Amino acid sequence: MTNPRKSSALKEHEGVSEPETTNKRAIQAIKTKRQSQPSAADLVKGILAKNLTALSRAITLVESTNPQHLKKANTIIQACLPYANKSVRIGITGVPGVGKSTFIETFGTFLTSQGKKVAVLAVDPSSTLSHGSILGDKTRMEDLVKDDNAFIRPSPSGTSLGGVARKSRETIILCEAAGFDTILIETVGVGQSETAVHSMVDFFLLLKLTGAGDELQGIKRGIMEMADAIVINKADGDNLKNAKTAKVEFNRALHLYPPKESGWQPKVLLASALQNEGIPEVWQLIEDYLDLSKTTHFFDHKRNEQNKFWLLQTIEDRLKSDFYNNPAIKAELQIQLQHIENGTTSPFAAAEVLLGLK
Amino acid sequence: MTNPRKSSALKEHEGVSEPETTNKRAIQAIKTKRQSQPSAADLVKGILAKNLTALSRAITLVESTNPQHLKKANTIIQACLPYANKSVRIGITGVPGVGKSTFIETFGTFLTSQGKKVAVLAVDPSSTLSHGSILGDKTRMEDLVKDDNAFIRPSPSGTSLGGVARKSRETIILCEAAGFDTILIETVGVGQSETAVHSMVDFFLLLKLTGAGDELQGIKRGIMEMADAIVINKADGDNLKNAKTAKVEFNRALHLYPPKESGWQPKVLLASALQNEGIPEVWQLIEDYLDLSKTTHFFDHKRNEQNKFWLLQTIEDRLKSDFYNNPAIKAELQIQLQHIENGTTSPFAAAEVLLGLK
Repeated sequence: MTNPRKSSALKEHEGVSEPETTNKRAIQAIKTKRQSQPSAADLVKGILAKNLTALSRAITLVESTNPQHLKKANTIIQACLPYANKSVRIGITGVPGVGKSTFIETFGTFLTSQGKKVAVLAVDPSSTLSHGSILGDKTRMEDLVKDDNAFIRPSPSGTSLGGVARKSRETIILCEAAGFDTILIETVGVGQSETAVHSMVDFFLLLKLTGAGDELQGIKRGIMEMADAIVINKADGDNLKNAKTAKVEFNRALHLYPPKESGWQPKVLLASALQNEGIPEVWQLIEDYLDLSKTTHFFDHKRNEQNKFWLLQTIEDRLKSDFYNNPAIKAELQIQLQHIENGTTSPFAAAEVLLGLK
Repeated sequence: MTNPRKSSALKEHEGVSEPETTNKRAIQAIKTKRQSQPSAADLVKGILAKNLTALSRAITLVESTNPQHLKKANTIIQACLPYANKSVRIGITGVPGVGKSTFIETFGTFLTSQGKKVAVLAVDPSSTLSHGSILGDKTRMEDLVKDDNAFIRPSPSGTSLGGVARKSRETIILCEAAGFDTILIETVGVGQSETAVHSMVDFFLLLKLTGAGDELQGIKRGIMEMADAIVINKADGDNLKNAKTAKVEFNRALHLYPPKESGWQPKVLLASALQNEGIPEVWQLIEDYLDLSKTTHFFDHKRNEQNKFWLLQTIEDRLKSDFYNNPAIKAELQIQLQHIENGTTSPFAAAEVLLGLK
């Protein structure tokens, strides 16, 4: 096939370069400014001055895989620590379609109207593959995104849940140091992410739908038991009657579980984020929880336990990744898994072989 | 206070030793025989010949902490593997007082009457401290203990759940090689042991009581979601009406959970182990499950997944114990935990310090 352009009447003569009309020096100055890396101290100063650009840049360092960036991020986090820890951290989960974005939009806007400063984060390891499933589309939170008292940050990408969770947890510290007093952490109700989020929040809220068999769909086993509250969303219009029935059923189901260590009895509420109904009640419930857990000192106890959990978790994640990323072990693991599948070795004998390669 | 015996009229004179009436040589011969260690090959031969003494001795090797014994145990297990894997493994849990021993006694006796060969094991890490809480008292299974087609083995002791679980899992292989076709694994419904047992059985049965507020007591969060069946025990006499109500409630609660990967819908049954009522129905339900899961090949799939799980679990347990038992790390861990409690370091910075000592 001949190149149509070559034989075409449309063939163009090559042009000549236009003379430069921009000031090279000015361009260079802009480039230098863009590339200039503020120091860790500058970023800390910015964060404590509630500068959102500084906050965003620091979070970008936390999310980086460059060891230099991580070192800088650690310095910033250490410096921010004394100013963190002064917020309420709320986990929000529910299957896709339950209306998490709309709920967070309405709930977040309610909170800022009450004088709160709200940071919205997400933990969603799948975002690496799907390029931002939840919170990727900020347009679904169009009021909140324009709200000066709100800060929205999509899920960091990462190869493992452990990595994503670590980054989110450090981001919480930075947001708190920047003066955000209410941290909402969104996650999809379909994976292990809930356990990770549960271990970084004070209060865990499960959004549910009624009708359409949602009770039987999607929510991973065990998540309902973590919930401090179940909010049945879209409880409006024709749905209201079903929602009320579902409320009774969920309440009954929650009573089958043993009491929580906090002494808190999980509650079921109805809400319609779209109609802006039931939202103050959700916040009131969280305040009740905070009152109770601060009176009993469970609040601090839980945060302390969470910090210890994250210490051990970080160590164990690294021990595992160091082991499984060893090329000799990687190769032998495949061989041993095949032996196990064939029934020619026991899991314990196979483990001995692999540990011998360490 | 003076010692009453010293000043008492009851004070006894010290006696003199009685002359030996037993043959020292005979005793020595018995001791030698007891101490003689049959070879691994002898024990394998004995196990495959369904010799219970050989089975018990091999299990003792599995449970030993002596590295020589463990090496021998590994050889035996590898040799038994081709003959294992041909049983149904049933986990049985429930809070203390629910009647686990009586249920296993009645259920096990029913199974042997049907021509089954039944091994009863236990996973109970607490037995290290309490010296045999569950199954320690074999007298509560007085029929089964005399039954030639039953083999009862209390929980191995161990310092960690991981250790106890590993030992139990290897014991299953030995029992299967010795011809036991039905393995019952008992555990107390109060700890992490259920997760371990759940990952080594085909079918997981939760015993419940009705009345006395049992629904709200003791059973750890998450255990109900693992159950393939809930059996409400002691459903007899005055209790029967309450048991029927509880059955409806549990059924309703189970329907709030999403479907299991097996496609199996967990069922609720009533039984009275003491009155020997409802026992064949429990077995029928398990057979229904086996039919379903074998037809869909979920049965083999699950066992294969369990084997892979145990491979990784064994590796990770060892990586952790090697790390945390390092004296330098042990000492620094206490220091870093204190820093975390004081809020002067982040869990992630503390983890870096500790990992640097590896």
